[in-house]
Amino acid sequence: LAKVSDIGERMLIQRVMRHLTQMPNMPLPFWDDASALHVGDGRVAVINTDMLVWSTDVPVGMTPFQAARKTVVMNISDLAAKGVKPLIFMPSVGIPADYLVSDMEDIARGFESGSREYDTYVVGGDTNEACDMIISGVAIGLTEENKLMLRSGGSKPGDILATTGLFGLTSCGFKHLLEGHELPSELKSEVLNSIYMPSARVAEGLTLADTGIVTSCIDSSDGLAVSLYDLSRSTGLGYILNDVPIHPAVKLFAKVNNLNPVDLALYGGEEYELVFTFNPENVTVVSDALSRVGCNLIIIGEVVSEKRVLLQHEGIIDEVKPKGWEHFIN
Amino acid sequence: LAKVSDIGERMLIQRVMRHLTQMPNMPLPFWDDASALHVGDGRVAVINTDMLVWSTDVPVGMTPFQAARKTVVMNISDLAAKGVKPLIFMPSVGIPADYLVSDMEDIARGFESGSREYDTYVVGGDTNEACDMIISGVAIGLTEENKLMLRSGGSKPGDILATTGLFGLTSCGFKHLLEGHELPSELKSEVLNSIYMPSARVAEGLTLADTGIVTSCIDSSDGLAVSLYDLSRSTGLGYILNDVPIHPAVKLFAKVNNLNPVDLALYGGEEYELVFTFNPENVTVVSDALSRVGCNLIIIGEVVSEKRVLLQHEGIIDEVKPKGWEHFIN
Repeated sequence: LAKVSDIGERMLIQRVMRHLTQMPNMPLPFWDDASALHVGDGRVAVINTDMLVWSTDVPVGMTPFQAARKTVVMNISDLAAKGVKPLIFMPSVGIPADYLVSDMEDIARGFESGSREYDTYVVGGDTNEACDMIISGVAIGLTEENKLMLRSGGSKPGDILATTGLFGLTSCGFKHLLEGHELPSELKSEVLNSIYMPSARVAEGLTLADTGIVTSCIDSSDGLAVSLYDLSRSTGLGYILNDVPIHPAVKLFAKVNNLNPVDLALYGGEEYELVFTFNPENVTVVSDALSRVGCNLIIIGEVVSEKRVLLQHEGIIDEVKPKGWEHFIN
Repeated sequence: LAKVSDIGERMLIQRVMRHLTQMPNMPLPFWDDASALHVGDGRVAVINTDMLVWSTDVPVGMTPFQAARKTVVMNISDLAAKGVKPLIFMPSVGIPADYLVSDMEDIARGFESGSREYDTYVVGGDTNEACDMIISGVAIGLTEENKLMLRSGGSKPGDILATTGLFGLTSCGFKHLLEGHELPSELKSEVLNSIYMPSARVAEGLTLADTGIVTSCIDSSDGLAVSLYDLSRSTGLGYILNDVPIHPAVKLFAKVNNLNPVDLALYGGEEYELVFTFNPENVTVVSDALSRVGCNLIIIGEVVSEKRVLLQHEGIIDEVKPKGWEHFIN
């Protein structure tokens, strides 16, 4: 009999979805970053739920405060990728009976801190007894339906592929924390901070949605490579990367540890950047919009009609591997 | 250092809440059954999140299908208690790596079945790796703010205290499953069904909200006694029970096992009835509203000004104990 670990998370979700009736006129389709509900007057509530499990998802050195704050960030990031301002957050927490009350108070402080950082409020939640610290969150926001940035938002071959930030810092952090690779002291705070204190791109998502010209958008939390494959499934199109957005610290870390910096940037995860596309004639509008919220537009490639994810590097074209973090099979 | 098991769930929630900034103008206050968000035009989205943990919350004999379906029911029940029709359901599931794919498909069927039963759709969700099967759900519905039935909805001394159903079946089931008490064969299907296949009172909640005259309402899933104490905390009032709503099967089970049927009805849990109050002059309106959806109005007592929960039984007045199911200390 097949186990969940035999088929992996994406196949599992497909098996689950076969049993579900699809709601008519869903504002956001299955397989998008979040879900949505019409609330009248052309507006939608956008909802995301995401769970953090201590023993599998929390790296060594992360505090209860940071884990709780990160649960807020990872839930909010998916709303940001749809161009939606988060308004409320609700945690549902599974707690071992011997968990310290003081640690639970740190978790509460993490919910508060993560929420207030994005002008969001914790409005309720739920506590339960569990075998492990389990934090399941729900973030909800409101927007006009016609402002939603869908994965399948109408991107076309020739569109520019861009991101809101550079990649690979979290890969370096996990390589250090989980596999013992050397972390040069001058990189320490930046690399560890990327894991312990991530940020969601809320202002960036809102300003991009306001332009009305983004043709697809996805949150990059499963890693840049996987996010491009996920986007490809929704758009039916492909991507050619000609400038992998590698963080400078990643290049140094890679050199010190004899690793490939491109791989560190492509095949990571837990990075909450937005990956999006738009028509090249709109590049100034997009760039200006992002710069108004202090963000650089980082162009990394182009949309192509062939449904593949390719990497053009020093004149050679390679296939990007559809790998990164996936539950059950890692 | 204090552990969560030293202080219990309600005290823990108080400790957590001390760290949270309260959102201005919350349509539903903290400590109500669900949370809410203004969506414009006097309307609110009402949201509930509730978690089911296999090892602590799933009794022997319950199937994955039933556990998943129950997660839908328990999330929807809190919306029903606010008079809100559930529209969407989103599960976030933690799954052990060696979990069978076929069992996970049964869980998917349970989400689908529970949702469709209440004209609700599963619109998204999340899967994660965990130490145990953990099902965290989110149910969302929409209503007019002025139709919300709050716990603190303005009940007054002299109001009638009523429920939508009889109590104690689940207590009998747990006494049988967990403590080995005899379950007479003629009660078996009714008692076990109450645990394995519970129902939410959605039609009842909607028709009660439509009357506009319910002065407070709570879902009874923590047990009748605890629900009355929780209601008392929100209203600042007390309750005197003069007719404990004991299911006839419970009387027989109690007799066979030499147990007190009143205790079985008061101190149970996992029963999804609505407990509510209204002015006695509206008894016909309320009774007619419920009968239109096939439900009997069950009057069990009265609201009193003194903040206590009392039981009047055969001429004697006793204090109802503030006990029932509470995580961590049971």
